[in-house]
Amino acid sequence: MSDFIPSEKNRVRRVPNRGAYDKETIYGIVDAAIICHVGLVQDGEPVVIPTLHARRGDEILLHGATTSRLIGAAASGQPLCITMTLVDGLVLARSAFHHSANYRSAVIFGRGQTVPVDEKMACLLHFTEKLLPGRWVDVRSPNAQELKATTVVAVTIESASAKVRTGPPKDDEEDYALPVWAGVLPIQQQFGALETDPQLTAGIAPPDYLTRFLKGAKA
Amino acid sequence: MSDFIPSEKNRVRRVPNRGAYDKETIYGIVDAAIICHVGLVQDGEPVVIPTLHARRGDEILLHGATTSRLIGAAASGQPLCITMTLVDGLVLARSAFHHSANYRSAVIFGRGQTVPVDEKMACLLHFTEKLLPGRWVDVRSPNAQELKATTVVAVTIESASAKVRTGPPKDDEEDYALPVWAGVLPIQQQFGALETDPQLTAGIAPPDYLTRFLKGAKA
Repeated sequence: MSDFIPSEKNRVRRVPNRGAYDKETIYGIVDAAIICHVGLVQDGEPVVIPTLHARRGDEILLHGATTSRLIGAAASGQPLCITMTLVDGLVLARSAFHHSANYRSAVIFGRGQTVPVDEKMACLLHFTEKLLPGRWVDVRSPNAQELKATTVVAVTIESASAKVRTGPPKDDEEDYALPVWAGVLPIQQQFGALETDPQLTAGIAPPDYLTRFLKGAKA
Repeated sequence: MSDFIPSEKNRVRRVPNRGAYDKETIYGIVDAAIICHVGLVQDGEPVVIPTLHARRGDEILLHGATTSRLIGAAASGQPLCITMTLVDGLVLARSAFHHSANYRSAVIFGRGQTVPVDEKMACLLHFTEKLLPGRWVDVRSPNAQELKATTVVAVTIESASAKVRTGPPKDDEEDYALPVWAGVLPIQQQFGALETDPQLTAGIAPPDYLTRFLKGAKA
């Protein structure tokens, strides 16, 4: 399956058998990542800014203050590159040369435009629910002034690729006999115990949707 | 302390009190991050690629296959933006609008050049020791062919900034009375239990420098 056609722009060159172009692989990485890194060109030079994101079909939603430089540039329709990366482990080979990392990354090329006012609330709900299902209905909704101060940008995905490495190290044949421990040191992103706001009104317990969500959940 | 002068290029605009320009803050984030996202301009458009990095004084070291697109571009002396981000938690406010994330990010602008052949081995050692102190002397060193196949690029930091958010949510005064749980959901990157290479020669135990390193260590 190759939903995005490999081209000069999105083709994975180094170790091409790690590359993938199907939506299932790419969107799986997009959805698993909490943040993305947005690259844009400003005065001919690159700028890379981290931000939260949420996918809506074949679009990446970004949001932020209407006055933000990132959001302004993203909304302008200039070319963007949005990259999500999950580091899954350090790969410890018998030779220094074959040390590596296990990872999943998605590199997305596209252009953004401002989401119309009447879609904004639904997009903000989508952002919150992606990170913490159940939270949105529990909290105070944005008022008119807050909605106005927030811009949501939808980036249409024009081309994309994923790159994935999994599994144990691959050493040179003659190195397997070396008396060196080899394997993978996994890296996991996890949620910690909830930290209550010191200003929380006494008697308010963490809601079920948070405590249930946390039971063994990976971040 | 402001080691890097805030300018149009590196100044933190949104929520400026979260911005920092001192080396202690910026380099602390650079050193704590396992990977970075390198932004460059190719045919006038942005490209953002994740990679491992190590800091050497006021330089960011990158490395990769001599044939890699990223390494070639990084070595060419064209402007680069290198961003490191650590996500520390989700900030759960009483209003949707004041939801946020706790994070530490460093945005670095600079240009790279290829490290001379006689410094290459020391740089590769530095990379390995940053991630796993003790590993380098345990494994087979790069041979002449492997060294030739690897390029190390040193990016001189020209300007930089950090942006940091910590602590509980900040709600609007009138929202503190709402019956909504508020606080922080921490996110931590942690090492998991070692996964032995299925092809490991029987009887080789994980070395002390790995097991000692893992005792409660955060990734």
